[in-house]
Amino acid sequence: MRSRPLKVALLGCGVVGSEVARIMTTHADDLAARIGAPVELAGVAVRRPDKVRGGVPAELITTDATALVKRGDIDVVVEVIGGIEPARSLITTAFEHGASVVSANKALLAQDGATLYAAADQHGQDLYYEAAVAGAIPLIRPLRESLAGDKINRVMGIVNGTTNFILDKMDTSGAGYSEALDEATALGYAEADPTADVEGFDAAAKAAILAGIAFHTRVRLDDVYREGMTEVTAADFASAKQMGCTIKLLAICERAADGGSVTARVHPAMIPLSHPLASVREAYNAVFVEAEAAGRLMFYGPGAGGSPTASAVLGDLVAVCRNRLNEATGPGESAYTRLPVSPMGEVVTRYHISLDVADKPGVLAQVATVFAEHGVSIDTVRQQGRQDGDGEASLVVVTHRAPDAALSGTVEALRKLDTVRGVASIMRVEGE
Amino acid sequence: MRSRPLKVALLGCGVVGSEVARIMTTHADDLAARIGAPVELAGVAVRRPDKVRGGVPAELITTDATALVKRGDIDVVVEVIGGIEPARSLITTAFEHGASVVSANKALLAQDGATLYAAADQHGQDLYYEAAVAGAIPLIRPLRESLAGDKINRVMGIVNGTTNFILDKMDTSGAGYSEALDEATALGYAEADPTADVEGFDAAAKAAILAGIAFHTRVRLDDVYREGMTEVTAADFASAKQMGCTIKLLAICERAADGGSVTARVHPAMIPLSHPLASVREAYNAVFVEAEAAGRLMFYGPGAGGSPTASAVLGDLVAVCRNRLNEATGPGESAYTRLPVSPMGEVVTRYHISLDVADKPGVLAQVATVFAEHGVSIDTVRQQGRQDGDGEASLVVVTHRAPDAALSGTVEALRKLDTVRGVASIMRVEGE
Ligand SMILES: NC(=O)c1ccc[n+]([C@@H]2O[C@H](COP(=O)([O-])OP(=O)(O)OC[C@H]3O[C@@H](n4cnc5c(N)ncnc54)[C@H](OP(=O)(O)O)[C@@H]3O)[C@@H](O)[C@H]2O)c1
Ligand SMILES: NC(=O)c1ccc[n+]([C@@H]2O[C@H](COP(=O)([O-])OP(=O)(O)OC[C@H]3O[C@@H](n4cnc5c(N)ncnc54)[C@H](OP(=O)(O)O)[C@@H]3O)[C@@H](O)[C@H]2O)c1
Repeated sequence: MRSRPLKVALLGCGVVGSEVARIMTTHADDLAARIGAPVELAGVAVRRPDKVRGGVPAELITTDATALVKRGDIDVVVEVIGGIEPARSLITTAFEHGASVVSANKALLAQDGATLYAAADQHGQDLYYEAAVAGAIPLIRPLRESLAGDKINRVMGIVNGTTNFILDKMDTSGAGYSEALDEATALGYAEADPTADVEGFDAAAKAAILAGIAFHTRVRLDDVYREGMTEVTAADFASAKQMGCTIKLLAICERAADGGSVTARVHPAMIPLSHPLASVREAYNAVFVEAEAAGRLMFYGPGAGGSPTASAVLGDLVAVCRNRLNEATGPGESAYTRLPVSPMGEVVTRYHISLDVADKPGVLAQVATVFAEHGVSIDTVRQQGRQDGDGEASLVVVTHRAPDAALSGTVEALRKLDTVRGVASIMRVEGE
Repeated sequence: MRSRPLKVALLGCGVVGSEVARIMTTHADDLAARIGAPVELAGVAVRRPDKVRGGVPAELITTDATALVKRGDIDVVVEVIGGIEPARSLITTAFEHGASVVSANKALLAQDGATLYAAADQHGQDLYYEAAVAGAIPLIRPLRESLAGDKINRVMGIVNGTTNFILDKMDTSGAGYSEALDEATALGYAEADPTADVEGFDAAAKAAILAGIAFHTRVRLDDVYREGMTEVTAADFASAKQMGCTIKLLAICERAADGGSVTARVHPAMIPLSHPLASVREAYNAVFVEAEAAGRLMFYGPGAGGSPTASAVLGDLVAVCRNRLNEATGPGESAYTRLPVSPMGEVVTRYHISLDVADKPGVLAQVATVFAEHGVSIDTVRQQGRQDGDGEASLVVVTHRAPDAALSGTVEALRKLDTVRGVASIMRVEGE
């Protein structure tokens, strides 16, 4: 074992950073044995220097993160500040000054991963970010390395714990969205401003990262179609149950059938109860991967939280330190396929549509004609008269697989029919 | 990209090897792009040279595996022959002649992994074997690398597809063991001689490998307690159902509560239906990992089959080739904790015991006294008179957690009681 320690600069000492610091201290011997050299916490950058940080020696604390990464003797920078700036500048500065980087920053990686990869590559440094997607669940490494000899066709996952907690509550208790959100907030599963989670921004960032890795191409946050889950109602859950399904907010990355392009999207979807993702409860995350040779794999675990996320950060830290002792680097960006990202209109899937229609003969024929005209083939229709006998009925149509654009066209035309009083809900059906 | 190819020697071209050869040919461009250099199949060793092997050029076939690994220009040897010899000698010879090795050979790794690791280390070569445990499921790499910064306390898994298929059939159809085995054989899930699977030898080899990696110590096949699943009956499944459980053949590797030793074992066990492993159907595998910081993770997928296993082999091949281009090696054996393996008697778990007893007053008190005398605390007892009124009743006892030795002592003493006519079954209860 080498006696000279590898020096680590920790940027950020919040939920994740404080756990990283704690484990680095309490498990120093194990880390040293696994790396082949001791690791030393050389400095910790924060915003508020006077906050008491249990276990972190006061002399390590600094508010000058830039000076810390420029010191020149730092081997690895662990970035757990979050957000775009100053994180991005700090990471590129770290590379320029001969340090490798471990980051948990999904927002930055999704928005500007290419810049970071290029900087790492230019300076011969590592950029690892297992913690950025699905917290503690090993996912980036299995996709980048274990499946490096395979062809991944599809990645479909529950990658946001907050929304899964809310949807699970709605499913099990029959609660509405806002009631379930209140419970999630009270229990600390949702932030005061839950927008990033419930509107699907967080999941979309992860989808961009996953799609890029899975398909060896470049996918940016803007390439990801995104629909949040704030419109999901108790009635949707009732419809899902009737179909033997539940509703999950899914991040789905797919290779097109002809292999010439990829898609990435985030939206709520019905999935059959028999699908492994259907039984992912509470704030857990799980990601389902379909590969040509490996078949169907699933990875399951806690998607967030200080200590699970720190576990992923530390796994990367060990890998990066080992690479350093080997004077080597791990796999960098792999975007050689240059597959374009197709728009949502080209995604092919199934749909569950609830319509409020006039309760009179001929309506079903009219509706069916609209679907046929748009090339959307119907799988099943369920028609039911309303209890209140006000001359309205509801019609539930489940389609076969069709392009999203064809479905949008169908819905637009349906809205124009006199006999269609309203489109109560449209939900994609996945996982069959 | 380097233009000179890396040369691969394939030892064995059976179920797994033929798929490795096929994918290396059909996906050559992808592999080259991911590695940074082309890979070339330099030779394929088999036993029967005249067998037609679609897609493998006849001039590559040889029956002299030793000469192939001694050629001197081989970068990576892929060993998919199986068994102890000649696989072991071929692997060590490969290291001596400057090649790294990818193997799927669980039997050899469990029996003599230390020798292989030492040889790899001595010659500065890589030894990778993701395919040896749970086929296509990325597991070795997540345990060795992703969780390298964490402390794993428990690995519990379904690591044999044949036995899971049989148990799943028994559970869903109420079939007995031999009927379910027949179906598994007819469908190709069980081999003509199913001993290695149904007696737990295959799972025990995997348990040894997993325990060694998880706890950074050396665990050999002989250290693993092993009980097969041939004695599991339809009545056991009925008892399990009454407890809200199902029965699985589990491989369980645990760190003792005091951290000073580890255990590894394979046996059938009841697990609650709510446990993620309970819903693993058919021949699928899944492994549940509990780590200090990461929490509870699960990895799920196909545990065997030519193409899933080839996926794992090729992932390793890409990693080993990349290491080679970097003039580096990946993580070798990590056995620094030197934790001893405790015998089965020290394993602490819960038990479900069915007794045939005399149907008369005082029996329960007698039985309860025996448990108490051995320090085994009872959780629940269910007593039921037999339908046929022959003076016998059955008594089902579920215990709290107790050492296996205490339970064995209890059972021995119970058998000596006049009022106990027989011990119908003893089954461990896990996953709570
Ligand atoms: N929390 C999770 O469960 C989780 C899961 C997966 C990934 N992540 C990712 O991990 C990263 C960190 O998340 P977190 O939850 O730990 O955030 P957090 O609790 O808000 O901590 C952020 C830390 O960064 C420090 N900081 C902020 N601006 C700074 C600046 N300009 N210079 C120096 N330090 C600065 C803060 O200092 P003060 O302490 O002085 O305020 C704080 O210590 C984010 O990228 C997040 O997306 C988090
Ligand atoms: N099959 C699976 O699903 C699976 C899953 C996980 C791991 N594995 C492991 O993968 C390995 C291979 O399994 P498999 O199912 O592919 O076995 P297999 O179908 O029996 O193939 C074995 C191959 O090795 C060749 N061979 C045997 N003895 C040889 C010798 N002395 N010299 C040269 N070649 C020899 C055979 O040649 P011939 O073709 O001429 O007979 C055959 O091509 C085993 O370690 C197994 O445990 C298999």
